[in-house]
This record gives sequence, C-alpha cells and structure tokens, in this order.
Amino acid sequence: MTEENKKVDEIVEILKNQNMFFILSHVDPDGDAIGSLLALSLGLLRIGKHVWPFIHKPLRLPYVGLDADKILRLELPKVLDEYVCVALDCTSENRLGEVSKHLHSFKKVINIDHHKTNTLFGHVNWVDPEASCVGEMLFWILKGLGIPFDKDMWGNIYYAIQTDTGGFRFDNTSKRALAIAHCLVEEGVVPWEVFSKTSNARKVEAFKLLCEGIKQLEFYNGGSVCLVVFFKEDFEGCHAELEDSEDMIELFRELHGVQVMVLAREIRAGRFKFSLRSKAGLDVSQIALRYGGGGHRSAAGFELAGDWEEIKTEVIQGLLAQMGDGVH
Amino acid sequence: MTEENKKVDEIVEILKNQNMFFILSHVDPDGDAIGSLLALSLGLLRIGKHVWPFIHKPLRLPYVGLDADKILRLELPKVLDEYVCVALDCTSENRLGEVSKHLHSFKKVINIDHHKTNTLFGHVNWVDPEASCVGEMLFWILKGLGIPFDKDMWGNIYYAIQTDTGGFRFDNTSKRALAIAHCLVEEGVVPWEVFSKTSNARKVEAFKLLCEGIKQLEFYNGGSVCLVVFFKEDFEGCHAELEDSEDMIELFRELHGVQVMVLAREIRAGRFKFSLRSKAGLDVSQIALRYGGGGHRSAAGFELAGDWEEIKTEVIQGLLAQMGDGVH
Repeated sequence: MTEENKKVDEIVEILKNQNMFFILSHVDPDGDAIGSLLALSLGLLRIGKHVWPFIHKPLRLPYVGLDADKILRLELPKVLDEYVCVALDCTSENRLGEVSKHLHSFKKVINIDHHKTNTLFGHVNWVDPEASCVGEMLFWILKGLGIPFDKDMWGNIYYAIQTDTGGFRFDNTSKRALAIAHCLVEEGVVPWEVFSKTSNARKVEAFKLLCEGIKQLEFYNGGSVCLVVFFKEDFEGCHAELEDSEDMIELFRELHGVQVMVLAREIRAGRFKFSLRSKAGLDVSQIALRYGGGGHRSAAGFELAGDWEEIKTEVIQGLLAQMGDGVH
Repeated sequence: MTEENKKVDEIVEILKNQNMFFILSHVDPDGDAIGSLLALSLGLLRIGKHVWPFIHKPLRLPYVGLDADKILRLELPKVLDEYVCVALDCTSENRLGEVSKHLHSFKKVINIDHHKTNTLFGHVNWVDPEASCVGEMLFWILKGLGIPFDKDMWGNIYYAIQTDTGGFRFDNTSKRALAIAHCLVEEGVVPWEVFSKTSNARKVEAFKLLCEGIKQLEFYNGGSVCLVVFFKEDFEGCHAELEDSEDMIELFRELHGVQVMVLAREIRAGRFKFSLRSKAGLDVSQIALRYGGGGHRSAAGFELAGDWEEIKTEVIQGLLAQMGDGVH
C-alpha cells in the first residue's frame, strides 16, 4: 500500500465516521477550487452527512453558471467545534481568508492540496504535488466512499481537472489525469453539459478592461518578459470589478515571444496583487515565495504594498536576475 | 465488422499498396487540419513512402511553432497522376483551394472527414460525423498501418483532438476521444511538450485588432446575438493580417449572454468571410449551407460578397428567423 493510498484510506475513514463537515477552498477560487468544493459537498450530502460548503464571496462569472449557489454558504456556522473542516487547494492558512482565524476552533482540520509549497496546517494533511489538481485527488476519496454514480458530483470533478490542466494542455496533464477524465465520461459525465453552463465567461466590461491592458503592455528583456498593471482607475473607467480580470493572465500569456507574464492589479489603494505565468520553465513560485505568496513552477502569485514604480522595478529586477542566473 | 472498420481497412490497404501520396487539408487550416496533415505525413514517411504534404500558405501563429515547415510544401508536384491524394477535414472540393481544379488528375482521391455535410468528392470516402475530429479517425489508420510509437506523429494526433474539442470541453468531446487521448499519453506523448511549441499564439497586432472588435460589438435580439466585423481598414490600422483574427471568435463566444456569435472579416474589397458560433443549440450550419458554406451544428462558416449593410441585415435576419422558429 502506497503512502497516497494510506492517506486516502485515512481521510475516507474520517469522512465515514464523522457527521458534520465545514468545507472550503481558497479565496479568489478557480475552477479546481470551485469544482472540488462542489464535488466533495455533493458527495457527502449524498451519503447523508451534514455539510456546510463555505465560499468567501458570491460566485463570479463563469462559475456562477455552475448553479451551485443553492448549496454554498457565505457565512460561518455559529458553533465551529462540532465541524470537521476540510480545506481544499489551500497552500497555507493565508489562503483560507477569514476562516484562518478560526481554524483552531474546528473539531479537526483535513488539508487536501496539490501544491508542493503546502505548509501542512491541518491535523491530517494529504499533499500530492504529482496530482494535476485537487479534483483529481478527490476522485479517489469519492471512489473510496463508494458513492454511486452522480452526474453532478462527477461533472464537478471533470470541471476541476479540465480547468486546472488548461484543457489537458498544461504541464500537469498526466496520464493519470486523462485516465480519470476518461473514466468520468465513461460513467456518464457529458463535458459539454458541464461547460455549457459556464460558457458565458466574460462580461463586456471585462473585455473593455482587457483593451486597457493591451494599450499598456510593457516589455522587458527583449520582449520575453511582459507586464500589465490595472490600477483602481482602470477598473472604474471600464465599470469592471477585480473579479473580471481573474483569468485574464491566461490570455496575455499567449502573447508571441513572451516567456514570463506578470499581471498586477491594485486591490486596495497602494496594494497590488501579482500573478505570474512562465512558459520557459522559469520557476516563478520562487519569486512568489520571496514575497510570502506561493504556487507552482509555471503559475504563482503574491501581494505587495507600496509605491507602484518601486514595487514594479523590484519584481522585474528579481525576475531578470533569476532568468540571468540560468535557473530555468 | 462495422462499416467504420471496413473503411479503415480499405484505406490502410491503399496506403500500404501505393507509394506516392499527396496529402492536404483545407484552406485556412485549424489545429485538426494541421495536426492531421502532419500526423499522416510523418506516419507514411516512417514506413518509407514518398509523401508530398501540401499546405496552401506558410503556417501562421500558433501553428508555425509545430516545426512542420521542414516537411510541408507550398507548391504542387509537376506530375499529379502518380500521386494518391488524401484530403483531410475537407467538407467539399471548395475547401481544397486551388487543388480542387486538379482533383481529377490524381491517381486516386481518398477523402477522410468528420463533417456530416461532406459532399463525398473522393474515390474512397470515409466520413464519420461521430468522430470528434479527423485526428481521431487517423488514429485508427495509423494503428492499422502498424507504425511503432512515434512521439511526433502521436503528438500531432493529440494536438488535433485537443484543439478541435476546445480542450475536451465542446460537444464533440466523447469518451472515444478521451480514450484515444489517454492512450496517446500512455504511449509517451507529453501534452505540455506539444503545446509549449504553440503557446506563442498571438501577436500584439492581433491583440490590437481584438480591441477594435470590442469597441465595435453589435448586439441583437436582446443581447443573445452578437456581431463583430473587421474591415480591411481595421486590419491595416492595427498592422494585422487576416490570419491574426483566425481564432478570435472563440474569445468573443465567451461573452456573457451571447448565444450566437457572428464574426465577419473583409477578405477582399466587398467580400466577407463569416464565422458563426452557437452556444444554445441553434444549428448554425443551416445558415452556412444557405450561402454555400458548411460546418457543424455549433460552428460554421461561409462567404458573401456585396454591400456590407445589406449582407449584414440579411444574415442577422436569417439568424433571428431561425431562432424565432424554435429550431434550436
């Protein structure tokens, strides 16, 4: 029996033996976070458990299409100590938002994640950096629980895997991930049904914001590093919300010749949220770690406060130094 | 033995017994067209055949990253009658461009396609509308030829399937397509290696053109129909080429609330190329057929010449009438 199998069995046992679960994923959730949260919640509901699926903010586009608002809750339960907390896709307590302050109040904390930089903040920690996403890990948990086929539950696992692998294209696309996807579709998941609900992905305001970004592209290192920043005025000028720019870096990363893409967004006056994407193998999680952030080799993020020009110079210099070191 | 299997066997026999092959796919090729063209050409080269892989124009972004220019040819062979012509992903002779004029000169024409509207223009026609793409069909041909594992060849099949299914997300994502994708990765294809070559997808000029489109969005039917047109001046103003707008409709189709997306591009003075995408189940291939075009239920295209305002009104009216008829 492998270590992974042991962890699955240990977590399945807890899920079977306990009755009340508080389930959450990270702030600013992506497809893996939402898909995983929904899949585990639906699975536990299916076997008669009391489930509190927590979400930090109302779902944004395109996730709002997943029709999940029915079960998601925006507030905390009054008494936490009766709940086992299951944290999904959270590298560290930071990623739990306001819930991090209450973590000690839960009966138990189960931490299921695929980031190698995970801080092991749970009582039980299952961290598998080989997994394409947390959705893939939950496939084994849900199989272990023996829940009969459920289109919604498995559809959310498919959604998690498809989105986190960039449509089975990014470097986390493994044969394991494809085998699970195939198995899900064989069991009855219809990918198009899952995705037709989320195909209304972007508001016109988000497209307008995108144009602002395109006007302001800055290139460094002969064009291999590209930076876009959205200030508060940009959002206001386009009537766009912060969330409208959530996946925009994936578009910019397609820019010809760009090896490292940096997207910065002013989330509060003078505080910037950085997202980094690397195509050339440069490990951008190293930069993110330096500033208290985290992520993967090719996708990472962090926050920094201060004067924009100073912050920008520092981040770009750091990137160029790392590229010059031949760390890629 | 099914009809499909018989067709595979028939084509495999011809490929084994003949020695000279002229292989092409349609004008304005997409990922399936390029991936299929490359996969079959590499496979036949591998078993010692004389292959002439024809392409109508030099490859554009992102396909130029596939390093295929080495084997692709832009001119026709001097003598055609020694060649068996294999047409891939071509609904009708129209889609063969200049080659359509010479079709009768080939020794034999094999037509392999997955469009239900295929006109069966070959001596041997294998049309399978259940196939996600032609790449999927070629998987069986290449298996039938018994070619040992070849990373490049299989990588191109993966590329064809992944791109034509929109990252295993569109309505042609079948368990058959996923089973083949899994098999390819199990045999040694590394999706990330395939896609890292094509991740430089868009020039800055293409992004600028995108902004022009966003400025000029026209909505009809309460926002459910959206139209963008790029005139020749738009391309010139952004220093963009027609090919820079090739996949742009996939971005516009993500617009919130839009059920049918229409992208028109002026390809010559007063001649417009229309691309249609439908999310709501409306069969846009019906509109395309009316104007001599073709395609699928949710993705189709055609060309029209004339005064822009008149053409536009006609196409939009046709769409609205079809939507009103409840044909969706």
